[in-house]
Parts: sequence; structure tokens; C-alpha cells
Amino acid sequence: MIKVAIVGATGYVGVEIVRLLHARQDVQITSAVSNSFAGKPFSSVYPSLRGIFDLPCDPLDADQLMEKADFFILALPHGVSGDLVPKLLANGKKVIDHSADFRFRDLAVYETTYKVEHPAPALLPEAIYGLPELYREELKHARLVGDPGCYPTCSILAIAPLLRNRYVSTKGITICATSGISGAGRKSELPYSFCESEESFKAYGLNGHRHTPEIEQELSLLVDEPVMVSFIPHLAPMKRGMLATIHLDLIRETTAEALHELYVETYRNDPFVRILPLGQFPETRYVSGSNYIDIGIALDKRMNRVIAVSSLDNLGKGSSGQAVQAMNLMCGLPETTGLTNPAFYL
Amino acid sequence: MIKVAIVGATGYVGVEIVRLLHARQDVQITSAVSNSFAGKPFSSVYPSLRGIFDLPCDPLDADQLMEKADFFILALPHGVSGDLVPKLLANGKKVIDHSADFRFRDLAVYETTYKVEHPAPALLPEAIYGLPELYREELKHARLVGDPGCYPTCSILAIAPLLRNRYVSTKGITICATSGISGAGRKSELPYSFCESEESFKAYGLNGHRHTPEIEQELSLLVDEPVMVSFIPHLAPMKRGMLATIHLDLIRETTAEALHELYVETYRNDPFVRILPLGQFPETRYVSGSNYIDIGIALDKRMNRVIAVSSLDNLGKGSSGQAVQAMNLMCGLPETTGLTNPAFYL
Amino acid sequence: MIKVAIVGATGYVGVEIVRLLHARQDVQITSAVSNSFAGKPFSSVYPSLRGIFDLPCDPLDADQLMEKADFFILALPHGVSGDLVPKLLANGKKVIDHSADFRFRDLAVYETTYKVEHPAPALLPEAIYGLPELYREELKHARLVGDPGCYPTCSILAIAPLLRNRYVSTKGITICATSGISGAGRKSELPYSFCESEESFKAYGLNGHRHTPEIEQELSLLVDEPVMVSFIPHLAPMKRGMLATIHLDLIRETTAEALHELYVETYRNDPFVRILPLGQFPETRYVSGSNYIDIGIALDKRMNRVIAVSSLDNLGKGSSGQAVQAMNLMCGLPETTGLTNPAFYL
Amino acid sequence: MIKVAIVGATGYVGVEIVRLLHARQDVQITSAVSNSFAGKPFSSVYPSLRGIFDLPCDPLDADQLMEKADFFILALPHGVSGDLVPKLLANGKKVIDHSADFRFRDLAVYETTYKVEHPAPALLPEAIYGLPELYREELKHARLVGDPGCYPTCSILAIAPLLRNRYVSTKGITICATSGISGAGRKSELPYSFCESEESFKAYGLNGHRHTPEIEQELSLLVDEPVMVSFIPHLAPMKRGMLATIHLDLIRETTAEALHELYVETYRNDPFVRILPLGQFPETRYVSGSNYIDIGIALDKRMNRVIAVSSLDNLGKGSSGQAVQAMNLMCGLPETTGLTNPAFYL
Repeated sequence: MIKVAIVGATGYVGVEIVRLLHARQDVQITSAVSNSFAGKPFSSVYPSLRGIFDLPCDPLDADQLMEKADFFILALPHGVSGDLVPKLLANGKKVIDHSADFRFRDLAVYETTYKVEHPAPALLPEAIYGLPELYREELKHARLVGDPGCYPTCSILAIAPLLRNRYVSTKGITICATSGISGAGRKSELPYSFCESEESFKAYGLNGHRHTPEIEQELSLLVDEPVMVSFIPHLAPMKRGMLATIHLDLIRETTAEALHELYVETYRNDPFVRILPLGQFPETRYVSGSNYIDIGIALDKRMNRVIAVSSLDNLGKGSSGQAVQAMNLMCGLPETTGLTNPAFYL
Repeated sequence: MIKVAIVGATGYVGVEIVRLLHARQDVQITSAVSNSFAGKPFSSVYPSLRGIFDLPCDPLDADQLMEKADFFILALPHGVSGDLVPKLLANGKKVIDHSADFRFRDLAVYETTYKVEHPAPALLPEAIYGLPELYREELKHARLVGDPGCYPTCSILAIAPLLRNRYVSTKGITICATSGISGAGRKSELPYSFCESEESFKAYGLNGHRHTPEIEQELSLLVDEPVMVSFIPHLAPMKRGMLATIHLDLIRETTAEALHELYVETYRNDPFVRILPLGQFPETRYVSGSNYIDIGIALDKRMNRVIAVSSLDNLGKGSSGQAVQAMNLMCGLPETTGLTNPAFYL
Repeated sequence: MIKVAIVGATGYVGVEIVRLLHARQDVQITSAVSNSFAGKPFSSVYPSLRGIFDLPCDPLDADQLMEKADFFILALPHGVSGDLVPKLLANGKKVIDHSADFRFRDLAVYETTYKVEHPAPALLPEAIYGLPELYREELKHARLVGDPGCYPTCSILAIAPLLRNRYVSTKGITICATSGISGAGRKSELPYSFCESEESFKAYGLNGHRHTPEIEQELSLLVDEPVMVSFIPHLAPMKRGMLATIHLDLIRETTAEALHELYVETYRNDPFVRILPLGQFPETRYVSGSNYIDIGIALDKRMNRVIAVSSLDNLGKGSSGQAVQAMNLMCGLPETTGLTNPAFYL
Repeated sequence: MIKVAIVGATGYVGVEIVRLLHARQDVQITSAVSNSFAGKPFSSVYPSLRGIFDLPCDPLDADQLMEKADFFILALPHGVSGDLVPKLLANGKKVIDHSADFRFRDLAVYETTYKVEHPAPALLPEAIYGLPELYREELKHARLVGDPGCYPTCSILAIAPLLRNRYVSTKGITICATSGISGAGRKSELPYSFCESEESFKAYGLNGHRHTPEIEQELSLLVDEPVMVSFIPHLAPMKRGMLATIHLDLIRETTAEALHELYVETYRNDPFVRILPLGQFPETRYVSGSNYIDIGIALDKRMNRVIAVSSLDNLGKGSSGQAVQAMNLMCGLPETTGLTNPAFYL
């Protein structure tokens, strides 16, 4: 029985982790940490969990938490975990951090992008980027994992087979992505209100979104040279779900069938990556509520391009589900434990 | 291991039963029957299930089905199961039927309401109304169960404590209910298209909805006298979820606290009925995706009325979840098996 | 040319009045008052109006406003207009106030309901309730008008023909109503955020909604005796639109046709009340974006009841449109000026 | 008074034209043609228009229509107008056709793309592409106009200033566009049903969308050389609205300010094109319900690209509004007549 504490449990990433873990036989959520709701039953914040997960929230007190749990999943804003992570590691705990704090290999990129001083730069070298499809073996032995961003997960997995095998140019990669509104977190801000969001669609982050350097880091590592991408996110009037349409310039002669086979082969042993048959493409309702990522590809001979379309749940494979997948690996459990439920569809 | 066949599996009630059963260890879906999609993988109809439940659909062939399964859940239109049910029972199978065919004690009420000749009237006397909160013991020994309608479940459970204990008048009961659009089934009809439904709300069934006599049958049985209700359903622009606001005239002096205690006591041993604290009321997002029904009550002293508000998922406790709950009872399994997941919330 | 100032112009009621008035030839919006956005172009708050209505917002300064306009529409919260209204009237201005401040004849009812001291009780006797279908002649000569609430408008117009003509009992009137979320105003509060509202439906105000005494005041005046109603509002996941389903106990023998004729006759000269043919009922998409109210009725012989269903746009006939309709009357203009556009439908 | 017939009036493009024209003083809709609803009041098909536009629908009878109207707007499927258009022109009528039949200069492109034989190829040379921002003068003298597609309008206007002035490469233009569901027309097909669309997002047309050659035709004409684009459309869960995010490779040194000025200058005399200030970008709710197109641009120095974001209402500037704008020009009326209402916003 693994004792897990979720720190920042009452945000959307946190509550989804609660939904995924609360019923497991091999895991026990021993602490749901929320300073805002300390002392109140978790189910008073999310009444869907009434009678199901009523544990009172704990305040963020490192010493007390240390007694309660062995495994920590942090879903806090960037830069605020402060000295918590070093303290946890020093006490032999394992940590998955969902902020951007431990996703970057280059301290300067992090600090430029997030405009904060890093709370624990000494830990960066040992932190593993928590994308099992790229770092499965490393995750099995990791103490500290940076849970990837939703857009990076959706983008990297769709691009990796082509880029790593040098089918496409490292130049001019264009990622058009769309997210549901829960990606913005549990926020009472006017632009995320129902009346200002429903029946509307927009692009945002046009002057540089924080996920761009994260995508570029991982793509660059795949080919061992700097890769820059054009990444433009959009917001659609839906709660969950993310879809990326990615344009890549071919640099080798090939066929749609060969490319499809490449994807199938690449992800043959990755239980949550579903490569769709040629001619079929993802829709967010096929993955929302699940830990799956669906990928479809098309070859545009006119433009000599590949179009890769990928879709995941920003609260599933894009954050909470992926954190649980990494936790399973870090704990020596089957990677799929507790994660094989299908999407809601309806 | 119980071998289950779902007949009419590709409708919304059917696919939700697949979602609930496909991963169970104690149950195996051995046949998903759909004449429209016979031979095609179930996951080609619902791509959310790709790689999860790919079983090819079977045509509706009674003899072949007999070989494949021991337990049958039928999610077909009213009046069409024809001679299937008698045949199944004659072969020792157990059956839950989600149409209205086996919900009524009075043949004439059924035939007047549904405007069809009953396919197997001889079976009506032994059919059990599949509402575990009222018929738990009967369900444990039932061969044939009529799965209740969504509005009736939502209404009856909210009214029963007051009516059975004679706190309220049998006259003038008014049920204002609202459903998500999936209640209409998987239909390609213009009024259910996105553009004709989104951002709109309407009442319907004003000249008599089929669920009225079903509600009245069960309420009448509770007090052993005829009860008539005014039941007006509405359609809201959402996929799932149902909420009923019920007005009842008090005939005894009481307090809000006493009424609340009555509800708590009534449902003390019913795992899926959650009575909310006084002052709190249901929202569909607290139950959508789950098998729970939430009930909140208010005492209106000015009008000398009780207002009971109840909410469930029309595809959960309102149909598919309830069918699985009844199946658990009929098979001697713990009633809650496979049903304790919380609502989606997001 | 009537010079109009809109005070509280950047709320949803305010912007809808701007949408209705900005293009009129006989009216000029000379001031859009908003302390929060003073100095900023109105179109920077609502970019839909870029290039269409760019007037900078004015701060709330009574003396300056006095110079700018002759007609004032106030869309401020309850109880805050303070000494503005008396000052405006003293200077010969005409005023429509959309808060509840001037809707009530009985000061005590107002102060009990809204839990504030009334800012100008001396003006109550002369204030006219701004419902043209009931007070058309009075409005033509009014200086001060209280713009009715959305639920009251939707309820009163649907009940008035039956109650005034003593077809139905004054007891036990039950109003089940549902509103779109814009009814809550332009608010950055969590319960109105997209992720906490979409795909959900709830009842609210169960311990007494502020619109109940407003409805009761007007119904009581119709029959010159106290009328109490049970009014339960609900919130649906849509931006605009309101629908009320009203249950009334018949006290006279009649037919559906006779009742229908009664409605048609009652509203023969009311250009914005549309009585639907027997058997047809309103949907909010038929009125959203317009100043129309649609009413359909059904006779339930089993229960000896009339069910009246009415629908309007909470930002149209339920507030902003109705204010403009009253303004037209107060200014001697044709009542329908600028208001005959149909609903959006899509 | 111009007498207008709308042929195919009960589709979404048709009803929007009715909404725009029914109240004009200078135009009279003398016939709304719909074989499906012939003889029935238009308002029985769209009850939002009850009491506003009740004209009975006419069957499609060319001879009768000839008597009724001088100006014809056709909103029929592609390839079916058959001999109607030649007949109308032969009788001195003016025609705007919203199908693709008269948008193409090259017959072969049309027939390859739409997979039908062209009904009247002899008329192609005189047909004008109904985009006033490119063909205003030609429209003033046109007899036959092909109303542009929604995606082409949204794309071409956002690209034209850069391409025509050779700021960007003719190669590698990438258009990521998203539409609301009304773009698919008034269809009772399962994929457009509420339950299969709500809370979902998808790419479509990946094997070649019909609007690609239409976009390419107009862009090629701008630079007098063949331009190919990569155009990928998406569907978002909303009724109206379209947004295109366009990636263009710079081939000249420039600044964001210079590019912005270029757009402002280009569209200085185009009343429906709104160039947003630098740093601001469109949202569909700012244009839905209106005839405006909003364009915002960003300069990505890292990638040496311009990102142009444009948004319109697929039923406004994307079809019906644009048809009315062209009609105004063809009839010598002020271009903006009846079209300056702002978006719904709410």
C-alpha cells in the first residue's frame, strides 16, 4: 500500500488525481493538501465525491506531511513549492511535481520563461521529464519527476516518430492546438466565465506561450540539435479535451502507409498511445476522461507535408493521468494500473 | 464469471452498460448485439473504446445468443423484444429489460400509454420493477426485471419517504423535471441537432408524457390508493443529467429537521442515495457519470409545502447504472460492485 | 432626438441597452456611465462594438450627467442609486431604474426582501412598474419607472389572463422557471465559470428568491386580494433565455380553446406578446435576442389544471428590451421602435 | 423598392438572409422558396419569426418566381440550380448564388473539386467573385455573383495585404481554421447531433477540403502566380463563428508596426474589416451575428513569420451578410445598408 499525498489537491489537476486514485486497492490517499480548504472535507469542495472521498483537507505543513505519506504529487503553481521538494527528497520521499519547476534541463530557459527564480536548481540534473513514452526506464528509478505540460505531451508524442527518424525537417514545424477551458485551472476570472466563453473560440499566447520551450527542449533532444517550433494555442468552449494539428515538411520520399507503420511500430509497447487507422482522425470526445492519446496522420503530397493530428484529455494524459502513469512506474507497479477506463464519450 | 449479453448495445444506454461492465473481473460481456452494426467492432461505433472493447457486434439471433450468455440486458425500443424474452426465460436465462415492456403491473396502462400490443403479457406478473431502493429483496430472486425510467427513478425516490409516511397529500403533487439530451437516445433528428439544441431550453410532453403512469403506479403502491401527479419534463442543453423539483403539500405539522431525518433514515442502507445536508441542493454535475442520486429538501412554511429536489444521471441511476445495480442483486453480488465511481464533475 | 444616459452601462443589462439604442435615429446615447471603465472607450470593454460604439465611459457624476442627457436608464445594483434618482427628477429628467428600488409599492416588502434601507422612499408612490402590458397608460405619463425583473415579467404575463378573469385559484400557484446564466450579471465568480456551469443544471433560491414578492405584488393587484406563489428558479447551461412552466388550479369549467381565446384576446394589442397556437409551446431560442415573450398553454383535465409555459430573453423582454419599450412609451414614441428584430435562433 | 426572392430560404444561410432583409425599407422579400415547406408560413419553420415574417414558402417554379422578384439570392446545394440561373439572367434578373457554382474561373477546378458537371459553364466568365474588398467595382456592375465560401473569406482577407505586397512567401502558407457547427448546414445527421458534438473538437477534411482551391484561386490572382496553401479546418462545439490562424513566412525585413499599418491602410475604406490594435486578437463572439471580420497580427521574429488571426461569422461575413453586402453594391445602395448591427456578444 503506497501512501500518497496530493499537494494542491483542490485544483482541477488535483481533483482528477483524487478521482483516479481514491478507489485503488494498492494506493491510499493519506493527505489532500489545500491551504484554502484546510480542515474541510474534500467532498465539500467537490460534492461529486460526497460519501466517496470525504477526507478533510490538510494545511501545507511539510513536517506533518512527512509523517503521512511516502509519495507526493504536487499540483501547485510554478515556483511556489519552495523548499518543500528538497525537504521531501531528503527524507526519502518520491515526488512528482506538476508545475513547470522540474521540466527543464536548462535553468535559464525556465527562469526566462516563467519569470521566477527557480526554487531548487540543484535538483534539476536528477529530475526526470515524466513522459513514459520517452523516459520509461528513467522513471522506474526516479525520485523526482516533472509532470509534462498538456500541450507538450500532445505535441511531442505526435512529432517524435517523424523527427527522430528524420522523415521531416527540423525547420518550420507548426503546431496548431486547441484546449478546453479547464486547462486554465479552477479560476474565477471573467474571461473564463460561462457567458464570456460559451459560443466563442479564440487564439491566445500569440506573443509566446510557456509551453513552446518545453516542446522545443524535448524535440531538440530527440535529434540532438536545436529545434524551434511555431506553437499557437486556442481555446474552445468545452471543459476538457485537447487536440493538436501539426504540420511537418517531409525531407524523405515515403508513403502514407510507411508513415503509419512507423507510428504503429514506435508506440507498439505504449499502452496509452493509440494510432488510428489511415484515414481516421481523433476527436476529443474519444479521449476525454481517459489517459489515452489518439494520433492520426495524413500525407499531403501537394504540399509535401505530413499532417499529424493528436488528441488527449488535458486533465488525463495531459496532466493527472500522466502523473499517475509515472507514479505507477516509479513504484514498480504495472504502468496501466487504474488508468484503463475509456473516455466519457457522452 | 457471469456471461452477459447486451442487446441493443450501440444505443446510449447500451454503450454506458458496456462502459460499466467491460472492465469487471466478475463479469464478461460475451455479446454486444446490434443488427445495424453486426460484424463490426463495437469500438468502430464508439471509438472511445478502441483497444478497450473491440468485440464485434452480433446480430440479434436468439439461438446463438442463448449459447453465448447467461444474463441478458435488453436496451431495445418498446414493444420490439417480441418473443425474445419468453425464450430467454424458458432457457433459464435472467433478463433485465430497459424498455417499458416490463415496468407495468397493469397491462391496459402499458398498452394505452405505449400504443402497442404487449409482446408477452403472461410475464408481467413475475416481472420486478428494478428499483433496488423499493424492491431489493424481490430483485435478489428475480428472473425478469423491468429497468425503471429515468424520470420515474428521479421522482419516486424523492417522493417516497414523504408519501409513504403520510407527511404529504396524495393530491396535487407537481413534478418539474429537466433532462439532458442523451435521454432522447442516439438519434439523428433535427430537434436534437447541435444547432437546434444549444443555447435553448424547452418544456415538452405537455399533453402527457409516458413516464407519468409509471410514476403514478409506484406512488400508488406506496400508499395503496390511486395517486395522480402533474409531471412536466424539460430539455436543457447538456448531454447528461436530470433534475426534478417536486412540490408536495404538507398534511402534518413538522420541521425541516424532522423531514431531513426522515430521508436520512429511509435511505440509510441504500448506498446510491445521498441525502444532502439541509440547505444544500443537487446539481447534475455532482452525479453525471455516476450511479448516485442526490436529494435535497426545503420546507416552505409560507405555502405549507415541501420542495424536494433530486438529481441523477439519466444514463447512470436513470438507466444503465441502475440496470447494473439490479444485475448485481440478481446475481448475488455486492450491490455496489463496479458502480462506486464518482461523477465526472468536469 | 432624445439624449439618453445609461448608468451602469458595462453590465450585461447595460450593454444590451447600448445594442438596442446605439443605431437609432431618434435617440442618442450621450453618456455610458461606468466608474470601473471611466475614460475608456465602451468598445474596449465590449470589443463587439469596436467601430460601432466607441464612446468613452463617463464616471458617475450627477452634475455632469445632468448636462448631457434628458433620459436616464439606470442599471445599477439594488440600493446604490442613492440620491441620484431624486436629483435627476428634481431637474426634470425622466428615469427608468432597473434595480428593484422602484418596483415595490410597499416599502417594508422591499426592505425585508433586499435587506437595505430604501434610498428614496418618498418616490415610491409615483414610480410606475414598467410592464407595458399592465401599465401602458401610466407609463405614457411617468417620470420614474421601475423596470420589472425577468422572472416576474415571464410569470405575470403568463398568469394574468387566467387570474384576472378568475379561471384559476389564487392558491397554490406553482412557478417552475429556468434562466440562462447571464441573468446573474457580469460576474467573475467561480459558480458562474464555464467549467463549473457547462453540462450542469440546478435549482437555486429555494429558501426564498427575491422575485417572489415582486410576482406576488402584481398578481395580488390583479385580483385585489393577497396571492402567494411557490416560485423555484433554476439555472441552465446557456447564456440567455428564460422559460417558466406554471401550474394553476382551475376553478371554472372551460375548454382549452376557450382559454386560448382568452389569452389571444387579452394580448391582442400587445405587440411583444405572442400567444402560440394550441399544442405549441415556447423554446428559448425563439425569443433570445428579441423583445418577444411567447406563451403556450395546455389544459390538464386529469389534474384540473392549466399549464402555462412562457419564454423570454432575460436580457430582452426580461430587462433591457422592456426598458426600451417603456422608454418609447414615456417619450411618446411608437412602442415598438427599435425592438422588432427577431430572436437570434442560431 | 427591390423585390428579392430567396431560393433555398429555409436553410441556415437562407434564414439569416431573411433576418437581415425582412425589416428593410428599401428591400422586400417577395418570395421565400423551399420545396420542402412550400405552402407553409416561413415562421412555422423558424418560429423565432412568428408575427415578423409569416410569408408562405413558394415552391421552386422558375416562371412564377420571374413574376415575383427582380433580385435572386440562391442558397441551394452545389450543382442543382440547373437551368435556373441562365433563365433568370435571360429575363434580366440579377443573381447571387451561394453555392460554389459561380466562384471558380476554371471549370476543371470546379468539376474536379465538386465532382459534378457544371450546370451552366457558359456563365463562368461573367460571374464575379462576391468579395467586395477585392471586387467592389466589378460587383457594382455585376449580373451574376458567386457568394464566396466562409473559410475563403476568412483566409483571403487575412492574407491579401501581406501577399499582394510581397511581404511573405507564396510557399508554405498554413491555414488552421475552426468553424461553428452551423457551417455544416441544417442537417439531421448523427455527427452533428448535440450529444455527438458538445464538448468535442476535431479536425476534418484532412484529405482535401473543397475550400482549398477557392482560397488558392484568389491568392494566385493576387500575385499572378500559382499559390498553394495547406488548409486544415476544425469543428468546435458552438453554433456560429469562424476563426483562422494563418502562418506566413516573411521574405522582407519589417516590423510589427509596419505590418499593422499595412493592414490598416489596405482596409481603410472597407467598412466591415476591423484591424485590431497590435497585441489584440479576435474572438468569435466579437463578430458572431454581425457582418464584420476582425483581423489581428503578430510578428514572430524567432521563426521569421507573421501570424495573422481572422474571425468572422460563418453565417455573416462568411455567407449571408456578405451576400447582402454584394446585393447592396449590385443595386447601387450604400454598401453598409442593413448590416451595421454589432455581434451578439452574449
